[in-house]
Amino acid sequence: MTNIVNRQIRLAGRPEGLPKSSDWEMTEVPVPDLQDGQVLVKNHYISVDPAMRGWMNDQDTYVPALKLGSVMRALTASEVVASQNPAFAVGDFVAGMDGVQEYAISDGSFLMKVDTSLAPLSAYLNSLGIAGLTAYCGLIEVGLPKPGETVVVSGAAGSVGAHVGRIAKIKGCRAVGIAGGAKKCAFIIDELGFDAAIDYKNEPLSDGLARTCPDGIDIFFDNVGGEVLDAALARINFQARVVICGAISQYNNTTPIVGPSNYLRLLILSGRLEGFIYLNWRKQWPVMIRELAEWRSSGKLKCPDDIVEGGIAAFPNTLLRLFSGDNLGKLMIKIAD
Amino acid sequence: MTNIVNRQIRLAGRPEGLPKSSDWEMTEVPVPDLQDGQVLVKNHYISVDPAMRGWMNDQDTYVPALKLGSVMRALTASEVVASQNPAFAVGDFVAGMDGVQEYAISDGSFLMKVDTSLAPLSAYLNSLGIAGLTAYCGLIEVGLPKPGETVVVSGAAGSVGAHVGRIAKIKGCRAVGIAGGAKKCAFIIDELGFDAAIDYKNEPLSDGLARTCPDGIDIFFDNVGGEVLDAALARINFQARVVICGAISQYNNTTPIVGPSNYLRLLILSGRLEGFIYLNWRKQWPVMIRELAEWRSSGKLKCPDDIVEGGIAAFPNTLLRLFSGDNLGKLMIKIAD
Repeated sequence: MTNIVNRQIRLAGRPEGLPKSSDWEMTEVPVPDLQDGQVLVKNHYISVDPAMRGWMNDQDTYVPALKLGSVMRALTASEVVASQNPAFAVGDFVAGMDGVQEYAISDGSFLMKVDTSLAPLSAYLNSLGIAGLTAYCGLIEVGLPKPGETVVVSGAAGSVGAHVGRIAKIKGCRAVGIAGGAKKCAFIIDELGFDAAIDYKNEPLSDGLARTCPDGIDIFFDNVGGEVLDAALARINFQARVVICGAISQYNNTTPIVGPSNYLRLLILSGRLEGFIYLNWRKQWPVMIRELAEWRSSGKLKCPDDIVEGGIAAFPNTLLRLFSGDNLGKLMIKIAD
Repeated sequence: MTNIVNRQIRLAGRPEGLPKSSDWEMTEVPVPDLQDGQVLVKNHYISVDPAMRGWMNDQDTYVPALKLGSVMRALTASEVVASQNPAFAVGDFVAGMDGVQEYAISDGSFLMKVDTSLAPLSAYLNSLGIAGLTAYCGLIEVGLPKPGETVVVSGAAGSVGAHVGRIAKIKGCRAVGIAGGAKKCAFIIDELGFDAAIDYKNEPLSDGLARTCPDGIDIFFDNVGGEVLDAALARINFQARVVICGAISQYNNTTPIVGPSNYLRLLILSGRLEGFIYLNWRKQWPVMIRELAEWRSSGKLKCPDDIVEGGIAAFPNTLLRLFSGDNLGKLMIKIAD
């Protein structure tokens, strides 16, 4: 047993609706000694993502359901501080899924070494990590954008939405973003270079889509679901692609999810609605990350970090910021330097 | 002006819910003389299809909305009885979209000559026409079936469903059909060779799908929509394809269409939901029809004709049979020998 104390956030309850403080438990455990093949990492950044809400449910999805009492699942950017695994050396920086805790031990099979000379460590949870890769896989691999097409993304001021807008521009498309509030809409136009923005809090969605997409929608990249998805379906073009990345409007529902009542537009327009998880492209990530890094270095790709200080203990309240609309850019928690 | 009288069914009203007799008007008009380039056909068979309900609405879809007073749109199998068009000779048999009437004049651009030595004329509205081609395009081109996969089709005793089941078997898949009533279920098992049937009138859909698809659903070919689509989504596999051909349960709704509340299964399982219209493959039809004809001749493909006698006047009541569940095989009206 080392004399390092590991502070952790564990899942203590299954929320109905928004997560509440009693759904979490903070524990302190000693870090055990490493066994052969194991790696000990110190987490520097913890990624805070909408998908976490789904991981709290008692239901297997693309990952198994978390058992009550488990350390909360989270993507992490970390430093190797001890290693009995020849693939990792002390001082290596890695990205992984090491949970909401200060330290983690694993066999390294889920760790990816990252190059901090290419970009700072936090970028591996942002443009060179979940946000950039999700946008890349969803827009390029699933959406199949063609130059001149109109790409609409919901949740446009979030980290994935921001990258979708930038990659749409890189691919020669028009980028239209849907976001809530004047601040977010100004951000996606002025900072991210979207061609148009719809503030759904100030304009009916159907009016906004008619105004910004006079030639219809070729690709709708949906992070939000609910009425946003329905409004977009009402304006899709022939052979449109509707990419389902998330449905943040529905994650805290206490009533059944509302399906898209305009789905028969897909029938009459030969459209496609497709879900995806960026984890399915793991083998292609190195190539994708190289391309994302080039775009990032040249300034074509940008998305601010939204970094919360305060360590592990900040997690419960930080997660809620995703659902209150109070987040712009990639949300993460800094837990070590 | 010829002295031939042409009896026609015209659209006289826009139904809410099921079409009623006052939505139709029967007219008799003389057939005009042909002009250069025109063809006069005598319709032998009129195809009666669920899509007709959508064509009655005041809304453009993949075809323009019909104006009130127009001859009702319908697919037809016909004989050329006069021609001023060098591409067509008297005695040629053709398939087209010549409407619910006894005769039709056109420039021939929508007529396709058919070979009645290969199959009887009615087959060009069944296995070698809309039913076979819809199943071919939807299952093979959109569904991309692989040997060993489980294909589930709703409306399995209808003409498209029957062909989907047979083509699934030809492609080495398991075929599971959803139909209403013991007679239809016996038909799809005994006559069509489906591997399993679910009688949704006698078994909860989710139980039936669990019983017949222990390994989940790889392709769901949906003709029905509503709760059938939702139940199927609940059992799809990783990278499943949900092919949207129709939604007959929703066509006569007087309330808004209910969207599939389980659509987020497509997200967590990287599934795809895609609509299609077989008209988009017009250029490939000749090749597809050749293959369908081979399968038909060898007995691999079969779907009985459900032919109503009584001419044009039988149309209004025959259309309702599609929505009452009282139809098995390809529904059409015979209006001439």
